[in-house]
Amino acid sequence: MAKSETSEAEEKLVEIGKKLVADVEIGRNPNLDVPIRNLSNISFDEKTKTLRLGKKTAKRFFFNVGHTKKFVQTLEVAKIAKTLLDVGKHASLRDVFYMAKRTIPNTKINIVDEQKETDKALEDLELITDHAREQLNVNANKMGSVAGKVVIEDKGDLIDWSRLGSGGWSIPSNVEEIRFRKVIAKYIIYMEKAAVWERLHEDKFWEKNNCIIMSSQGQTTRGIRRLLQRLYNDYKLPIYVLTDLDPYGLYIYSVIKFGSISLAHMASELAIPSVRFLGITTDDVLKYDLQRHFIKLKDIDISRLKQIADYKWFRDSKHWQRQFKMIKQFNSKVEIQALSSKGITFISDKYLPEKIKNNDFLE
Amino acid sequence: MAKSETSEAEEKLVEIGKKLVADVEIGRNPNLDVPIRNLSNISFDEKTKTLRLGKKTAKRFFFNVGHTKKFVQTLEVAKIAKTLLDVGKHASLRDVFYMAKRTIPNTKINIVDEQKETDKALEDLELITDHAREQLNVNANKMGSVAGKVVIEDKGDLIDWSRLGSGGWSIPSNVEEIRFRKVIAKYIIYMEKAAVWERLHEDKFWEKNNCIIMSSQGQTTRGIRRLLQRLYNDYKLPIYVLTDLDPYGLYIYSVIKFGSISLAHMASELAIPSVRFLGITTDDVLKYDLQRHFIKLKDIDISRLKQIADYKWFRDSKHWQRQFKMIKQFNSKVEIQALSSKGITFISDKYLPEKIKNNDFLE
Repeated sequence: MAKSETSEAEEKLVEIGKKLVADVEIGRNPNLDVPIRNLSNISFDEKTKTLRLGKKTAKRFFFNVGHTKKFVQTLEVAKIAKTLLDVGKHASLRDVFYMAKRTIPNTKINIVDEQKETDKALEDLELITDHAREQLNVNANKMGSVAGKVVIEDKGDLIDWSRLGSGGWSIPSNVEEIRFRKVIAKYIIYMEKAAVWERLHEDKFWEKNNCIIMSSQGQTTRGIRRLLQRLYNDYKLPIYVLTDLDPYGLYIYSVIKFGSISLAHMASELAIPSVRFLGITTDDVLKYDLQRHFIKLKDIDISRLKQIADYKWFRDSKHWQRQFKMIKQFNSKVEIQALSSKGITFISDKYLPEKIKNNDFLE
Repeated sequence: MAKSETSEAEEKLVEIGKKLVADVEIGRNPNLDVPIRNLSNISFDEKTKTLRLGKKTAKRFFFNVGHTKKFVQTLEVAKIAKTLLDVGKHASLRDVFYMAKRTIPNTKINIVDEQKETDKALEDLELITDHAREQLNVNANKMGSVAGKVVIEDKGDLIDWSRLGSGGWSIPSNVEEIRFRKVIAKYIIYMEKAAVWERLHEDKFWEKNNCIIMSSQGQTTRGIRRLLQRLYNDYKLPIYVLTDLDPYGLYIYSVIKFGSISLAHMASELAIPSVRFLGITTDDVLKYDLQRHFIKLKDIDISRLKQIADYKWFRDSKHWQRQFKMIKQFNSKVEIQALSSKGITFISDKYLPEKIKNNDFLE
C-alpha cells in the first residue's frame, strides 16, 4: 500500500509540473487550482460526522503580484517533496523550511523567511495533490508511546507491542508504512498524559483487559491520529479517549473525533467519528467524590470552554450540553490523576474496568 | 541491584520512622536532619567536575510553627513512598500530589495545596534517605526514544534497540530496573530534537556508525539522564551531545555534564562529567556557511546567555569563552536542522562522521 501510494503521490507531483510546463508552452499564465481553506469553505458533514472542506477553489497565478510568492513557495515545497520521494527519504517540517530557505539568485528575496510559509505551502500541496503530507514524505513531531496485544512490521522489523518492557514502542511521526501482523486487542484507550500511560502499563492493564494503551504528552500528533485511525479502519477497534476534565481535554477529544479546522481537508485521513469519550466526566467527579480536587478555571479556560461548547457537534448534543453546564457550575477542572487519591491502582482496578463494562461513555 | 536498592530505600524509610517514634517516646521534639539546598550550600566540585551539595543541614521540628507544615509534608510523602515500595508500584509526581492532598481531620487545613509542595518534600526526602526519587518509586515525565546496537532486559522482556522499526524504544521515566544484556555500540549521540533523531534513524546512522542515538524533545528527562549515565558507567561509552547553538542548547549540555542547581544533591546519580559537546558550534556555523540561517537572539536569550557563560565551568574554559563571544557577535542562534539546507542526509553522511572522526568536540 505505502509503496503504491508513494508513487501515486509522485505521479501527482509530476502531473502538476507537466501542467505548468504546458501553461508556459502555450503562453498561458502558469496557475494552480488551490482549494480554499477558510471557514467559508469548511462545514460539518452530518453524514460522515466530521469537518470537511467544500469544493471552492481559487486560482493561484505565477504572474500576479499578489500570488507570485505563494506560487513559488508551493512549487518549491513540491520540488522538495519530489526529491524526498525520489530518494526515499523523509524530512521534518523544520527541515523542509531550511531546504526551501534560500535567496533567489541576483535578488535579495528569500523564497521563504519563516517556517509558517513552508507549512502553509505544504498544506496547500496536500490539497492540490490530494495526498497527505506524510505521503509526501514530510513529517511533523514524534511523540508518544504504545503497548498492547499487537504485532506490527516496520522497516523489516517485527515488533511486538506486548514485549517492550516498561517503555513501550515509541510512535514515529509517520506510520503510513507500518503493517499490522497480529491484532488481538479488543479496544484502544488513548490518553492525553504519559504519566497515566505509565500507571496503566505498570498495572498490566492492557494485558488483563486485552487492549491497547496509547498516549502522547499533550497534543495528539498526526502520527498518533493516523495510527488510531488505521487500527479502527482495519480492525474496527473501539477507541476510548481519556483526558482531564477541562477545555483542553475536550478539545483533544474533539479533534480526534471530528477533525480540526486547520486540517479540515485531512478529516477523512485523520478524524475518527466513532471514538468515544471515556472521562473524566462531570458525573465521574460526583460519583468518585473528586470535587475536593477542583482546580479553579482561569478566565482563558472559561472563554475557551464557551467556544468549544458552541462547536456544532457539542451544541447539538444534550448530553454534552449538560457536561458543559456542569463544568461551568463547578467553575473548575479536574485532572485524571485526581483518581490517584482513591488509591494507587484505583484507575486500573476500578475506574476504567467499570466504565468500560457499563458502556459509560459520552459520544 | 534494583531489588536490593529498593529494600535499602525501604529500610531507610523505616529507620526514619523509628527515629521519630523514639523522639516521641523520650519526650523529645520529633525532628529530621534536612540538608540545606540553596546556593550557600552548593559548590562546583573541581575533582568530580560536577555541582555538589555541601554538608550543611538544618533540623526540621514537628513542634515549631515555622516547621510543622513542612515536617508533616515530608512525613506524608515518606509514607506514600513506603506504600509504593511495599506494593511494588510506581507513581508520578502528580499522583503523589493527589495522594498527599487531603484535609487533616477536624481542621480545614490541607496537607498540601500545590504540587510544588510535594515535589519539594520529595527532594528533601531524597536527601534525608540518600536515595533518588526513582528509588522511592516516584517518576517524573516520560519522554524520548532510543535506537542502536543494544539489547536490554526490562520487566522480563528482551528488547533489541536495533529491531524496533521507525519508532524505536520509548524511554520510560524510570530506568533503574533495566538490565543491559548486550552493548555493541561504541558511542552515544544524545540530541535535543526528536526530528533530528528521526533523520539519523532513517539514515541508519547508528547501524553504519555502530552507535546509539537517543533523544527527548526539549528538556532532558531524569529517565534519559540516568540511562545515559548507566551506559557510561557500565560500558564507558563516550556520549556526544547535539543541540541547537543557542542558550537553551548550551544549558541542556551543561545540565547533562555538570548537573543542575535544583538537583545538585543528585549530581552523582545524574551528572556525567565526561560528555562532550558535538555541536552546533560557532565554528560549524563558519565552516558550513550557516550564517544565512541565523535567527536573531531575543533580549531574554541574551541575558540567559550571559548567565550561562558565567557558570564556573564555562567561565574557566577559554574554548567556551570563545564560543560565547562569537555567539554574542553573531547575535543569533542556529538550529541543528539548518544543516538540512546542505542536503537531506548531510548531517548523517558528512557533518557527524567528520566531526566524530576528527574528534572535533568541545569539552
